[in-house]
Amino acid sequence: MSSTTTAPVTEDQPLIVGGKTLASRLIVGTGKYKDYEQMQHALDASGASVVTVAVRRERLVDAEGRSMLEFLDTDRYTILPNTAGCFTAEDAVRVAKLGREILDQLDNPGKDWVKLEVLNDKKTLLPDPVGTLEATKELVADGFKVLCYTSDDPVMAAKLKEAGAASVMPAGSPIGSGQGVLNPNAITIILETLKDGDPDYPVILDAGVGTASDVTVAMELGADGVLLNTGIAHASDPITMASAMRHALEAGRLSYKAGRIPKKLYATASSPWDGVISYIPGE
Amino acid sequence: MSSTTTAPVTEDQPLIVGGKTLASRLIVGTGKYKDYEQMQHALDASGASVVTVAVRRERLVDAEGRSMLEFLDTDRYTILPNTAGCFTAEDAVRVAKLGREILDQLDNPGKDWVKLEVLNDKKTLLPDPVGTLEATKELVADGFKVLCYTSDDPVMAAKLKEAGAASVMPAGSPIGSGQGVLNPNAITIILETLKDGDPDYPVILDAGVGTASDVTVAMELGADGVLLNTGIAHASDPITMASAMRHALEAGRLSYKAGRIPKKLYATASSPWDGVISYIPGE
Amino acid sequence: MSSTTTAPVTEDQPLIVGGKTLASRLIVGTGKYKDYEQMQHALDASGASVVTVAVRRERLVDAEGRSMLEFLDTDRYTILPNTAGCFTAEDAVRVAKLGREILDQLDNPGKDWVKLEVLNDKKTLLPDPVGTLEATKELVADGFKVLCYTSDDPVMAAKLKEAGAASVMPAGSPIGSGQGVLNPNAITIILETLKDGDPDYPVILDAGVGTASDVTVAMELGADGVLLNTGIAHASDPITMASAMRHALEAGRLSYKAGRIPKKLYATASSPWDGVISYIPGE
Amino acid sequence: MSSTTTAPVTEDQPLIVGGKTLASRLIVGTGKYKDYEQMQHALDASGASVVTVAVRRERLVDAEGRSMLEFLDTDRYTILPNTAGCFTAEDAVRVAKLGREILDQLDNPGKDWVKLEVLNDKKTLLPDPVGTLEATKELVADGFKVLCYTSDDPVMAAKLKEAGAASVMPAGSPIGSGQGVLNPNAITIILETLKDGDPDYPVILDAGVGTASDVTVAMELGADGVLLNTGIAHASDPITMASAMRHALEAGRLSYKAGRIPKKLYATASSPWDGVISYIPGE
Repeated sequence: MSSTTTAPVTEDQPLIVGGKTLASRLIVGTGKYKDYEQMQHALDASGASVVTVAVRRERLVDAEGRSMLEFLDTDRYTILPNTAGCFTAEDAVRVAKLGREILDQLDNPGKDWVKLEVLNDKKTLLPDPVGTLEATKELVADGFKVLCYTSDDPVMAAKLKEAGAASVMPAGSPIGSGQGVLNPNAITIILETLKDGDPDYPVILDAGVGTASDVTVAMELGADGVLLNTGIAHASDPITMASAMRHALEAGRLSYKAGRIPKKLYATASSPWDGVISYIPGE
Repeated sequence: MSSTTTAPVTEDQPLIVGGKTLASRLIVGTGKYKDYEQMQHALDASGASVVTVAVRRERLVDAEGRSMLEFLDTDRYTILPNTAGCFTAEDAVRVAKLGREILDQLDNPGKDWVKLEVLNDKKTLLPDPVGTLEATKELVADGFKVLCYTSDDPVMAAKLKEAGAASVMPAGSPIGSGQGVLNPNAITIILETLKDGDPDYPVILDAGVGTASDVTVAMELGADGVLLNTGIAHASDPITMASAMRHALEAGRLSYKAGRIPKKLYATASSPWDGVISYIPGE
Repeated sequence: MSSTTTAPVTEDQPLIVGGKTLASRLIVGTGKYKDYEQMQHALDASGASVVTVAVRRERLVDAEGRSMLEFLDTDRYTILPNTAGCFTAEDAVRVAKLGREILDQLDNPGKDWVKLEVLNDKKTLLPDPVGTLEATKELVADGFKVLCYTSDDPVMAAKLKEAGAASVMPAGSPIGSGQGVLNPNAITIILETLKDGDPDYPVILDAGVGTASDVTVAMELGADGVLLNTGIAHASDPITMASAMRHALEAGRLSYKAGRIPKKLYATASSPWDGVISYIPGE
Repeated sequence: MSSTTTAPVTEDQPLIVGGKTLASRLIVGTGKYKDYEQMQHALDASGASVVTVAVRRERLVDAEGRSMLEFLDTDRYTILPNTAGCFTAEDAVRVAKLGREILDQLDNPGKDWVKLEVLNDKKTLLPDPVGTLEATKELVADGFKVLCYTSDDPVMAAKLKEAGAASVMPAGSPIGSGQGVLNPNAITIILETLKDGDPDYPVILDAGVGTASDVTVAMELGADGVLLNTGIAHASDPITMASAMRHALEAGRLSYKAGRIPKKLYATASSPWDGVISYIPGE
């Protein structure tokens, strides 16, 4: 038999967001875990190099008086502070600045960026487009690298990029809904629009991921990365789900690069096939 | 910081089909590649331990007079002979026996099993349920371990199991169509029915996979494995796609074991959240 | 203003099944209603000209000793006897013959036809393909016009047509599931296959309709008619739902005939549009 | 036989928008037709009582020098002027006022309302949320009844209602895309949000309808009406499609009122059924 060499899988370029190179295209949250040990294991299993932390949470301690930051290896993870819990542009800007101060003290590379969330209401947790745009402009002017959570509306996405967002992060579906990518058409238009003439502009799917295949689907559409939290933290077995998400991200990225076959009603041989080496029907 | 230990991802049991333990839950075909080197690399990248070969093809040689078997490391791969190209039960039985003879000479562990395909017509390549049932009975009586390709009709699936099939392999969609799992409802009923009182009975999704997320979806439904060929062999970059499929399989299996979160219209906090450590809305 | 004339909607040809011309393409069941009056009103509202009756039910009487047939205007409705409740070919054939005798006494035009159901089990109510094929052959040989309930497997559908079925009636989804057409790809292949060279061969979607849009979708795929029962009988307001189904059938048929616009990611004007009468963007 | 009385289909209340009662819940456009005669017939077949006209078009004449208004029976139809072709709030406001002047001269009841479109770009024709909100405020202040075209973002929809829009008109999918309702989840949240404590507030699906079932689906979700143009005007047979849309609207509305059955994997009888009058399995 001819010797088998290692298969030459195409090399991928790393994702760069706001000047930072990410070792993994999966960004994960740190909330909603049973305890910090579970969080720690899940982060490890996810393969993420960037983890997002709600600035409002960070100073808080758990029942045993322990701070989350004791459980985050800041040599290993870049912290992406987020403005979860903010319902106005003003509040989000204030919280973003507070996050910068805290990370500055930690000397973490994440100190000048922020995942911006300006939420509309506590019921749906949908983003407020007007407040988001306003806060983006203000934070960009203040030197932040803004990773901007938004709906899947391509026009708002374009306005946020135009306002200087380092990355636009459209929602697949509402936060915590577990519905995955409800409107692939919208995500495709966002990708087409934001990458037009600027193919490396990073678009990261954020929110709505319920299960591994949601991540794969998002990456197959051409997203540059995925950010998620609840899908891991509230799974029955968060650590195993974190590992699933890691593989799902890889699967989707590779699949996107590899170029899938077209969909057909059925696959009739388009050429004669009897007695030919190249094709056995049903093979 | 507290020390990070390796995350305890839940151990999985290997898939056992017809008494054989499979190191990977992904079974891949060997047809439709540009050349044998490409096939060899794709098999390697897929992580498969079982590869299926059309008996009708195996004796054939390529333009340079080389046989496929020269490029299949039979120490590494268990060969699963298949009856692709057979349109009657009689023909399929004959081809299955021929495959057994060939593998017997190779002393490959795959010698007593067969992936049974009895196709209805060259246009749609859909399986013939009547011929498939007939051939299954005959091959089982002759001592074969039959892995049985069939439609997603749960009743035919049950009849094939009852006839002694070692595994039932429902189609996600027509062979080569790239449509993925068109009817998850049907696959779910098949899984529920065939595993009722017999949870280890192996159900392997076969046919229709177009891209990585199709594999993940199938595994998340609870399939024990996936068999595919065209989705890899006809991708723009088959080797990279093979790697994608490997991750997709792993993602779907882990996700299934981990237990996904439920789907909701939106995720309202069901408990008070202001000033509480456990929840920042939008986190 | 120019005078408005009545709009020239294209005339449709009536559906002919087994030599009988149907005034409506909607066939409805008679089971599961709260009482016979409700059934009577729902049948009226549905616009159906053919109603199907379980032969096993017909001689039974309600709590007040009234027979269903007292509430079916047999001058208005053609009765299509069905073999609901039969789990073997033998039983279905026996029941079909019993139905013929009863309708013969009523002198109803439905006396020589039968909606054949050979169910596999009481749990899923899925059809038994093998028993269905066997019963079809037997009933055709005995002079019946057989309208044959089957799964959405195109190969079984083709075998049933070949066996002489007057109409093949694929399931959109399991009986009573309310899931609509789960696999439009399969229904499309059935239509393409059964109408190949025989465009008037009637294919009627049977089973699974949950709501009006399911009927419209089935007709837009090219089905010649739809048969349903639970979707009306178990709606909160069966009579209003019957009216909905009537309109849904009409909508789907007209839409199919009218030829829909193609789907696109978005509709860019393909021609210059400024200052031109023919196009205002967004109009 | 007991006498059949006419079935008591539940009476529906008419849709009221901005103080005007609409005889039909279907609103249709007047653009993109081959000629005015075809438009006239299609309007008639659609059953619409309100038709929308691009103000920018209205003064223009066709190749034979005829104005569209000669072909619109203004005694029969209420004209809803729209601002198609406007890409800024300023332009849309100007065009809306121009429309009011023109309709004032015609003494048409539509003179104080407007279908507001502020589009973002000529390529996707997606609405500009910021410009739309701005124009809505201005037009409301000027006494207009504003029917506001917007994306399916529930937050923007709520802001537009709050700004005083007489009706919010979310897009099912991009104008002219023919994709139907791409995100039912979003439309459901819009309906829930805008009708919370205000059940009669009118939400009308606008844009994206490709075929009849899209209309039925939108109404089944609970929309109060549907506005469409391309789906009719560019169908192969626009007049027949207009009739399809009329039935589809009616089907969806009735179905919504009637209350559909739930979806299940399969419908097992939940009660004993042998020998009971009320249930024959498979009926």
